[in-house]
Amino acid sequence: MVRPSIVLFGDSITEEAFGEGGWGSSLANHYSRSADVVLRGYSGYNTRWAGRVAGRAVATVAGAVAAVTICFGANDAALPDRASAAQHVPVGEYRDNLRAICAMLQRRWPGVVVILVTPPPVDEDGRRRYPPYAHDYSGLPERTNAAAGVYARACVEVARQCGIRAIDIWSRMQKFPGWEKSFLRDGLHLTPRGNRVLFEEVVFALKDANLSLEALPADLPLFGDMDPDNPAKSFEDEGEWAEC
Amino acid sequence: MVRPSIVLFGDSITEEAFGEGGWGSSLANHYSRSADVVLRGYSGYNTRWAGRVAGRAVATVAGAVAAVTICFGANDAALPDRASAAQHVPVGEYRDNLRAICAMLQRRWPGVVVILVTPPPVDEDGRRRYPPYAHDYSGLPERTNAAAGVYARACVEVARQCGIRAIDIWSRMQKFPGWEKSFLRDGLHLTPRGNRVLFEEVVFALKDANLSLEALPADLPLFGDMDPDNPAKSFEDEGEWAEC
Repeated sequence: MVRPSIVLFGDSITEEAFGEGGWGSSLANHYSRSADVVLRGYSGYNTRWAGRVAGRAVATVAGAVAAVTICFGANDAALPDRASAAQHVPVGEYRDNLRAICAMLQRRWPGVVVILVTPPPVDEDGRRRYPPYAHDYSGLPERTNAAAGVYARACVEVARQCGIRAIDIWSRMQKFPGWEKSFLRDGLHLTPRGNRVLFEEVVFALKDANLSLEALPADLPLFGDMDPDNPAKSFEDEGEWAEC
Repeated sequence: MVRPSIVLFGDSITEEAFGEGGWGSSLANHYSRSADVVLRGYSGYNTRWAGRVAGRAVATVAGAVAAVTICFGANDAALPDRASAAQHVPVGEYRDNLRAICAMLQRRWPGVVVILVTPPPVDEDGRRRYPPYAHDYSGLPERTNAAAGVYARACVEVARQCGIRAIDIWSRMQKFPGWEKSFLRDGLHLTPRGNRVLFEEVVFALKDANLSLEALPADLPLFGDMDPDNPAKSFEDEGEWAEC
């Protein structure tokens, strides 16, 4: 039987999930014997583009998808009159796109647990220091925390309306003093500590959806459960070589 | 079309591949837009047990497997008269088991690129300091570097005979001064720096097998390749929402 998988669908916050201390790596490590973590992150994408390609993106995923995280909004929230205007999507359209993406994934993977993740908060100072944004013609940040917050609230609202889970990482992170530099590497993308916060939230949401470590069977006998005097006993049902 | 995948099959050196700085995480990050990295690591397993369950283990993998790394031997090489005797497998049987595992995977996934990875070297001092081995009745290490070397050479020999690729991480690591503490956490398992050495070797072997980053198509348009004045142009072939 194919192992269940957890698909991570999103923008750069997702594409970078296997970088240093990444939340995707931590998930893969957490579920090392029970579930596969499948990366479908597309840096720079907003929901308009993600919506267009969502069908193609999920068609590249094989196997039994048990859960999917959807994290978009950081690019949609780029301001329409600043350096990253090409990525901007109005919040009303963001809401519609997000709803359509969720519906499409639920049709494609019936019974899948969908977890919407809001964009993270923005540290405008950190963003300004980070080239090429530091050299922007206006000197003004192309993303603001207030704008990201509007999209985060829209994301939570879509989740509530659709009856699916949401992780409000925008609010959650700002509860920690010093979140700006502690959790964000360049004012937008996550540090290893920021990744840990998101990892914990995802683990909690999966547990809430009955996809905890305890709920999923471990693939093959654990070494610690074997009889040290007769470990081969654990494999008696496995047949012989010829049957492989 | 399903993304190609790279399966990591092995013992704890593999099961831990998504731990801190792990070689599996680095691979997943490296191939973030082009291949899936699938973990099938079974801590404590030797080739005798892995051989028994290999059929079941690969049956849990969905999709199009392009390559598989096989890393066993660290447990087979545990000394037969010390604390980890239950894991010991004589080197002749290790060789036969490894050959049978390779043949089985090649039958299951025709055309798959197989990469055999030797066990890492052993730092006996580090091993002794690491509980519970420090409190062994004899005070003697249950693994030695010389014994691991015998299995590493057997692994390389099997690869040569079968005409498949091998990564001799046992020899490679010992070329670095201070490898004992720099690459091994507890005398046996990899530190983040040790993981980096293995990651580089795997990337090199995959490149040699025409599975480099350049050789594999990126999944969906890269943001950097989009026309900043008309990014939507990159998605013109994607059809409309209704078609998803």
